[in-house]
Amino acid sequence: MKILIVNPNSTANMTTIMASVARQKTAPATSIIAKTSAKGPASIEGYFDEATSLHSMLQTIHETPDADAVIIGCFDDTGLDAARCLTDKPVIGIGEAGFRMASMLSNKFSVVTTLRRSVPALEHNLRRYGLAHHCIKVRASDMAVLALEEDKEAACNRVEAEILRALHEDQAEAVVLGCAGMAEMATQLSTKHGFPILDGVACAVAMAESMVRLGLRTSRLGGYAPPPADKLKAAFYDLGIAA
Amino acid sequence: MKILIVNPNSTANMTTIMASVARQKTAPATSIIAKTSAKGPASIEGYFDEATSLHSMLQTIHETPDADAVIIGCFDDTGLDAARCLTDKPVIGIGEAGFRMASMLSNKFSVVTTLRRSVPALEHNLRRYGLAHHCIKVRASDMAVLALEEDKEAACNRVEAEILRALHEDQAEAVVLGCAGMAEMATQLSTKHGFPILDGVACAVAMAESMVRLGLRTSRLGGYAPPPADKLKAAFYDLGIAA
Amino acid sequence: MKILIVNPNSTANMTTIMASVARQKTAPATSIIAKTSAKGPASIEGYFDEATSLHSMLQTIHETPDADAVIIGCFDDTGLDAARCLTDKPVIGIGEAGFRMASMLSNKFSVVTTLRRSVPALEHNLRRYGLAHHCIKVRASDMAVLALEEDKEAACNRVEAEILRALHEDQAEAVVLGCAGMAEMATQLSTKHGFPILDGVACAVAMAESMVRLGLRTSRLGGYAPPPADKLKAAFYDLGIAA
Amino acid sequence: MKILIVNPNSTANMTTIMASVARQKTAPATSIIAKTSAKGPASIEGYFDEATSLHSMLQTIHETPDADAVIIGCFDDTGLDAARCLTDKPVIGIGEAGFRMASMLSNKFSVVTTLRRSVPALEHNLRRYGLAHHCIKVRASDMAVLALEEDKEAACNRVEAEILRALHEDQAEAVVLGCAGMAEMATQLSTKHGFPILDGVACAVAMAESMVRLGLRTSRLGGYAPPPADKLKAAFYDLGIAA
Amino acid sequence: MKILIVNPNSTANMTTIMASVARQKTAPATSIIAKTSAKGPASIEGYFDEATSLHSMLQTIHETPDADAVIIGCFDDTGLDAARCLTDKPVIGIGEAGFRMASMLSNKFSVVTTLRRSVPALEHNLRRYGLAHHCIKVRASDMAVLALEEDKEAACNRVEAEILRALHEDQAEAVVLGCAGMAEMATQLSTKHGFPILDGVACAVAMAESMVRLGLRTSRLGGYAPPPADKLKAAFYDLGIAA
Amino acid sequence: MKILIVNPNSTANMTTIMASVARQKTAPATSIIAKTSAKGPASIEGYFDEATSLHSMLQTIHETPDADAVIIGCFDDTGLDAARCLTDKPVIGIGEAGFRMASMLSNKFSVVTTLRRSVPALEHNLRRYGLAHHCIKVRASDMAVLALEEDKEAACNRVEAEILRALHEDQAEAVVLGCAGMAEMATQLSTKHGFPILDGVACAVAMAESMVRLGLRTSRLGGYAPPPADKLKAAFYDLGIAA
Repeated sequence: MKILIVNPNSTANMTTIMASVARQKTAPATSIIAKTSAKGPASIEGYFDEATSLHSMLQTIHETPDADAVIIGCFDDTGLDAARCLTDKPVIGIGEAGFRMASMLSNKFSVVTTLRRSVPALEHNLRRYGLAHHCIKVRASDMAVLALEEDKEAACNRVEAEILRALHEDQAEAVVLGCAGMAEMATQLSTKHGFPILDGVACAVAMAESMVRLGLRTSRLGGYAPPPADKLKAAFYDLGIAA
Repeated sequence: MKILIVNPNSTANMTTIMASVARQKTAPATSIIAKTSAKGPASIEGYFDEATSLHSMLQTIHETPDADAVIIGCFDDTGLDAARCLTDKPVIGIGEAGFRMASMLSNKFSVVTTLRRSVPALEHNLRRYGLAHHCIKVRASDMAVLALEEDKEAACNRVEAEILRALHEDQAEAVVLGCAGMAEMATQLSTKHGFPILDGVACAVAMAESMVRLGLRTSRLGGYAPPPADKLKAAFYDLGIAA
Repeated sequence: MKILIVNPNSTANMTTIMASVARQKTAPATSIIAKTSAKGPASIEGYFDEATSLHSMLQTIHETPDADAVIIGCFDDTGLDAARCLTDKPVIGIGEAGFRMASMLSNKFSVVTTLRRSVPALEHNLRRYGLAHHCIKVRASDMAVLALEEDKEAACNRVEAEILRALHEDQAEAVVLGCAGMAEMATQLSTKHGFPILDGVACAVAMAESMVRLGLRTSRLGGYAPPPADKLKAAFYDLGIAA
Repeated sequence: MKILIVNPNSTANMTTIMASVARQKTAPATSIIAKTSAKGPASIEGYFDEATSLHSMLQTIHETPDADAVIIGCFDDTGLDAARCLTDKPVIGIGEAGFRMASMLSNKFSVVTTLRRSVPALEHNLRRYGLAHHCIKVRASDMAVLALEEDKEAACNRVEAEILRALHEDQAEAVVLGCAGMAEMATQLSTKHGFPILDGVACAVAMAESMVRLGLRTSRLGGYAPPPADKLKAAFYDLGIAA
Repeated sequence: MKILIVNPNSTANMTTIMASVARQKTAPATSIIAKTSAKGPASIEGYFDEATSLHSMLQTIHETPDADAVIIGCFDDTGLDAARCLTDKPVIGIGEAGFRMASMLSNKFSVVTTLRRSVPALEHNLRRYGLAHHCIKVRASDMAVLALEEDKEAACNRVEAEILRALHEDQAEAVVLGCAGMAEMATQLSTKHGFPILDGVACAVAMAESMVRLGLRTSRLGGYAPPPADKLKAAFYDLGIAA
Repeated sequence: MKILIVNPNSTANMTTIMASVARQKTAPATSIIAKTSAKGPASIEGYFDEATSLHSMLQTIHETPDADAVIIGCFDDTGLDAARCLTDKPVIGIGEAGFRMASMLSNKFSVVTTLRRSVPALEHNLRRYGLAHHCIKVRASDMAVLALEEDKEAACNRVEAEILRALHEDQAEAVVLGCAGMAEMATQLSTKHGFPILDGVACAVAMAESMVRLGLRTSRLGGYAPPPADKLKAAFYDLGIAA
């Protein structure tokens, strides 16, 4: 089984982290294909970055037809619906996966993400997935995505401080880490504090493995109907993205 | 990895079907422990049956401490919250699993269940999981749970007819089969009709495997805090259920 | 008119309190039958206790066919839907009654209950009854149900302190006391503070009287259809609960 | 105990019907004061009639200070919030009472009202009370309010036909009659068809009796704070309504 | 184009302020007709004042048939639905206009209004318009409507302090001023603080101009069907309001 | 005042239609700048087309800094949130504008759009704007966007037939035309049938004029904070879209 993780931003280091986390969590026979978008923003922090990363990310998915499932490697679930039109393989966003897993392990959770500007898109997704009443608060740790990489210890401390606020101020029963760049922290912090702290990358990869094993496919009816061939061709060859 | 499927009704044949479906879908190293409730109703069709199956089902879970995850083998997700208090292992209902998977494969789905009396409990669960806006209609096929076993061909035809109504009248993009007794039909009907027809048993088992592999645990904080030892003891030894 | 109050926990003293509160509030011709579950947990604090009290509570209702209405004497409204399948007489939960009365006397109310572990079940009920937007906060007073009995003055002080927090921090217009064990405090505290502080037992008993006087019956169609005779028999005679 | 039923329309015959229904349902010691608004529209069918009946109806309530509870005798619950500012006695609308009772006797109900123009106000109220998900459909019988009086048999037949549509097309478990003018039909039709058919007048009167017996008062905090004396005076003496 | 602004309260000075704000914002060819209700309360603070201002306000609208659009000049959107039955011209409430504009300029806003007693009516309107999830908090500045006029500088300081709380405590992205009497403050405060601070009067007038230019009309079908002639006549000539 | 209408698809003819409709509706001093996306799909029918049109559409907005307001000329409101990050001028989607106007002119409306595959995105938007309860049904006319242009009479007949279904089957009080290509039909059909039939282009342009006249700006706080300069530069110059 091959699972594609597509990182919609152009920071290859984040792709490496996600691939590493994914490989620790998958069955031996599962192969992780991790790709960085050819042309996206350096990080995704809010609506504008999402929008400008989308087209190149879809191209990457289109160019990986042998993947048995696709993971959108950004906590905003960038382009999730469009990606589902592009393939009948299961497509899962890491935000969605983290939220859904948390709602099966707790009654109420909080989310710890990066910047304030990223919060409304996550709140919107929570409403869209019907999980707003499970989420007490989406908290910004005031760390930019790339700052998470620069000084890992400082970043981890800051994220941990925000998790403790979620625990005490929100009375959260679980916390979802709201950025792919925080993926490595989850296991360690969860063990240390003794309650579920979830990373969406691991959740999404595991869900994708499940869906592939079950032979589940994205519906081709209605809203996820595949685009006609000419539109597909035009989208990926005429816009100057393709070589 | 050991996954417990507990059938809250007392019909052993349904347990066998669920175990068989589960074993076809799990990784080779996963072992399925399928147990029938010692003292439940012959089938679960609505609120009363749920309530009278609950205590014995919880006892069964309690007596299987070596399970790495627990599947509630009834589409009503009988006693899901109570079971989550009883163990820190992941606990998943087959209704919940089917609904959540369907919402990642389609924009809108319908549910085909057994009797009209079972419909409100499922509608209530859809609202509770935040998925009511994804579900167009919960359809009763007017077949009692046990009738599904008596004449499998007739049952399959009736369920199929209702699926086609969901496809054409509801414009559903996917269908979730709303009874554990329909588990065997899903793959065949999905292949025949070319769109996702989901069985909750397979979905739940696969999700449970994912969660165990990730090391996820049910939160012990708040609503799923474990009962104190004396209550646990009283519940399972004083009520006349235990030997 | 006979109204059955069934206490799903096994603490007879709480049954006595509820009966006493009920008798103060009912018309002279109304007779209160107060029964303690034969085999339930000592107190109901959250999902597990609810589940393990359910079967015996239903048996008690079944064994009281001359009741004209049934009150579920636990603020979690334990087994409310199942009980409605069991009889065509009106069945009312004390949580439900308190919430609905409060929503007719105020725009926004808070709830003061016992332990944190009890909060999610109440929040779930508020959503289920469509009253979540009327309730500002469900507050835990951090007093266990049985502790309410041990030192009544201390308990009352602690509950009162939480009521004042609801008044000032939540700007609540009314407060619902979220435990049958607090029933005696409502009138006194409401008089002292001059705004509605409601006890669900009184609310439920009064509503039940109304419904009986009107000749209203629980619908036998759909989700509250009565269980077939063989299931009823099996539920109450085969599980070892009945004598 | 004195309960005021105020009919916000000026058709005295409807007041008589409501009083008669109310007197059949109340305890012997309860006295029904039924008043017709001095200056309202002949019937209330939609938003405009509600608005123009409001001021005079409030005046009537204000002029009946000895009432222990107030029933708004129009299925639109005309001026319910304003009336709650005017007195600390319980105030109940007949629409609200019918909806809330139906939601305790069934999982899903339909409403049968008069004209299409009246439907949106009722749908709005159902959302406002949080009961929209309990109501399958608000059905117009295409009979004007006053036509209900002209030929009672024809009216009853038309209403009955619509009830049967609710039963078969909506799979309603109960029906609420959506007009004070239908109050007399409820008991007979409910007995004939064997499932709950509710009349809001009876429901409201019985609820009011309960609330008075419990000593419950409308909150004076927040949104139902009483108007200052000068505004009260100005409202009822300066506008030309008072003598 | 003629736009009627009807002030449902009887304080002519507030009408003057609204007219002045409106005239600054409209196209030169637009004529503002500003009318004070003949017989309303001196200010509108909550449900009771709304109700007692309604009838006279509708009369004013009825007596201005040459208006091409109608603005309800009270932040509670007093009688909005009834006014829409009375004319097929567009009718807009200043609360509604402010809320809708704010939801197109920000993800989340707060509202700053006058007294605590006014808050629930605004919260109810936000739910009714479907905008509750866009509004973080409705804040009372504890200034009565008429106090806004008495000492303008003190009033502005108090409102500004509450705006800053919305900015810092609520993390609001925009603020809507929740009283017609605050209309003059919006532009100045918005410029000073550099984020959207909206006044509903300006928003409503501009929206009305748009709708008139587009030739849009209120639907005459369903809930906004015009009242029959006899009811119209009775409403405005029999109640003692008309000369 | 200059208003930019950006057509995210590459069919210049649709841009011409939108510009023509807009110019008929705006004040004389308003100048309409209508631009076709350099590189988008020929039409936008669902999620995939939205996603692949987004980047080029944003570039067009970025290259038109002198616009005082921006209209997203696609009924899906493609990239609305991202566009709001890109400029502090008001940005309005034609879907949003049509829905919001309809909700101020009617209690309940239906939408008539092109293909079934476009329906879920519109339903999602209706939920996101909080207007789902105002919309009875989103109807597909089964006409592709470009087919609307090929045989205008046939197209208009088909759309009209669907409008009549909305009127009679849905009991809609208004209809919103769900495609920019239907813009020319609205006025004529509305006049013919005598109830509001709205075109989002006209609605959006008129709303934009209002907002500009009021000096309203998109908030720069939170979710619509502008992207940092380096991201902006990277987005538009490094991806191969710019010359």
